[in-house]
Amino acid sequence: MDHDDYMKLALDLSQSAEGQTSPNPIVGAVCVKNGQIVGTGMHVKAGTPHAEVHALRMAGELAKGADLYVTLEPCAHTGKTPPCTDAIIASGIRRVFVASIDPNPAVSGKGIGLLKAAGIEVSTIQTKEADFVNRAYFHFIQQQKPYVTLKAATTLDGRLATQQGDSKWITSEQARTDVHNLRHTHDAILVGVQTILQDNPFLTTRLPHGGKNPIRIILDRRLRTPKTANVVTDRAAETILFTLDRAEGIESFRDFPLVRVETINEHANFLEEVLRRLAKMGIMKLLVEGGSYVHSSFIEQQLANELYVYIAPKLIGNGPTLFENDSRPLIAQSEKLHILNTKQIGEDIRLHAVFAKEVPTYCLQES
Amino acid sequence: MDHDDYMKLALDLSQSAEGQTSPNPIVGAVCVKNGQIVGTGMHVKAGTPHAEVHALRMAGELAKGADLYVTLEPCAHTGKTPPCTDAIIASGIRRVFVASIDPNPAVSGKGIGLLKAAGIEVSTIQTKEADFVNRAYFHFIQQQKPYVTLKAATTLDGRLATQQGDSKWITSEQARTDVHNLRHTHDAILVGVQTILQDNPFLTTRLPHGGKNPIRIILDRRLRTPKTANVVTDRAAETILFTLDRAEGIESFRDFPLVRVETINEHANFLEEVLRRLAKMGIMKLLVEGGSYVHSSFIEQQLANELYVYIAPKLIGNGPTLFENDSRPLIAQSEKLHILNTKQIGEDIRLHAVFAKEVPTYCLQES
Repeated sequence: MDHDDYMKLALDLSQSAEGQTSPNPIVGAVCVKNGQIVGTGMHVKAGTPHAEVHALRMAGELAKGADLYVTLEPCAHTGKTPPCTDAIIASGIRRVFVASIDPNPAVSGKGIGLLKAAGIEVSTIQTKEADFVNRAYFHFIQQQKPYVTLKAATTLDGRLATQQGDSKWITSEQARTDVHNLRHTHDAILVGVQTILQDNPFLTTRLPHGGKNPIRIILDRRLRTPKTANVVTDRAAETILFTLDRAEGIESFRDFPLVRVETINEHANFLEEVLRRLAKMGIMKLLVEGGSYVHSSFIEQQLANELYVYIAPKLIGNGPTLFENDSRPLIAQSEKLHILNTKQIGEDIRLHAVFAKEVPTYCLQES
Repeated sequence: MDHDDYMKLALDLSQSAEGQTSPNPIVGAVCVKNGQIVGTGMHVKAGTPHAEVHALRMAGELAKGADLYVTLEPCAHTGKTPPCTDAIIASGIRRVFVASIDPNPAVSGKGIGLLKAAGIEVSTIQTKEADFVNRAYFHFIQQQKPYVTLKAATTLDGRLATQQGDSKWITSEQARTDVHNLRHTHDAILVGVQTILQDNPFLTTRLPHGGKNPIRIILDRRLRTPKTANVVTDRAAETILFTLDRAEGIESFRDFPLVRVETINEHANFLEEVLRRLAKMGIMKLLVEGGSYVHSSFIEQQLANELYVYIAPKLIGNGPTLFENDSRPLIAQSEKLHILNTKQIGEDIRLHAVFAKEVPTYCLQES
């Protein structure tokens, strides 16, 4: 194993906790002495020890003179836990390999500076790969908006449902289970009120081995969500209804302890304001399970970062599509994406793509 | 290597000549003696020697007492070449492994019967796999219609073009080159007159290393194809215009030696009649590069056998889709397909699927 292999292992470790760490980044660490792995760790949850601390604890006395590979610059400030730089210096680590530089202005570069000042040799490797793995965190810190993932299930001719609104079921059971994995790795899930009225979904994570329920966000300008809706009554997770400040019946949701109504001024950009509020609440990763209208709004306003499309091998011939827009007469005006991967799930295909503005250079070079 | 490996090799050999053998099937043969391959062959072109003959010639004297693996039952009749059963018996082959039984009533079972009568041991293996590899031939013989492959290039939201008709280009150059491979492996290519009027395409095979041009079929009920169209004037391949018998200007195409006009009675089912005529001309594999109207007609009339969709990572928001149909309000009424494979080509994804009625059992079990 060489430097890249150890860092790759640290990146893999970090990704195993995807969706658990918000608003913190995902981080992995590997401690190596004389070519042997002596410690590994990852950040599991905000408020608990960082990846480096787990790896150093595992290494114990062996950390002295060892190398530490960490996917994100170690923190130099006291947050909910003490600074990792102190722990690294105290452990006797000889060299530190860092992938991403922390985009957080409170940390950026300071962690590396402190280590160097303590006489530790510091190198950066695999920065682009690690920045991409933590793309939601980078976006969240730099844009102060949640990182938005659109999810859609379509037929081969691109329909989300029939014209009559039937969509049960376009995709196979396996594909629908896979969606629950997406829910688990996102902090919140967003739908339009139309979905609530039509399907009355729970929007919870239902996986064979459990999972984390996302906060449920409903876009509901006229507050039409029924008091009997599952997301209102089930108490499985928090539900936030975003509505216009002139909507009627706001107080009638006070009886539901896990339901909150947020009002937005009618002169504000509704969607941007929703995202701004969600960021303030610490929601870093937002999954949008919209219909045509909601998806089209996110796409048209350039607020979507990536896309999962589950394509079922079916042709139906009518119904709304993932994106409806009348203002683009030329293909050259299309919204460009970059496909990260495709996967057969049951009888369907899952296509995972990022919007072109998100594509890191190294991704484009690969294809 | 075991029996299955040798037959797999024979199947691979057969597929290397895909598109060259019509109206004959594709066939591969492998001759094995004492665990060593001593002869291989495949059918290259109608009127030239069959796969078995090539493999036996290569084996020469070593064929005595050897095993022969052949993907399709050897022929027992004199066509353009003498019966293969004679050659096999004369060569001294001891055992023959056959995959598909020839669906042609003039051959079916007779080849195997003759071999057995001559004291040769005959077994069948991998019949389903070989039947699927030769699915176009089986369809052609059993239905007396060409095997129809639809090809479409769509955006991620399912559009073939914008509402204004712009489609240049949805997919990448690599994907468009891949389409030329499809043209090479089909006997004929079909479009509607709308495509001729809008794009004035050549519909030829343009590959870096050459390739075979398909016969060009234009559906043109009112005979609107211009005399100046590239498919009329370029003499690169035969062009057949299908029109209604009451269409005007039929005689005006007489000056073009490679252009033929076929007329169809207005009371006939136009598309079915076109396919019937094409089958009579020996066209076994038909590639349909339709727009929305042509594709929808094939799909609605259950005349399509398989589908290649090139999906570009773009969203455009308006325009026609692969299938337009108003009579299916429920997802349960959708036309079902089975995905054979997906492939990244340039920045696009190629999805290859067969219509459900074509799916062989072993295919379904695999997924």
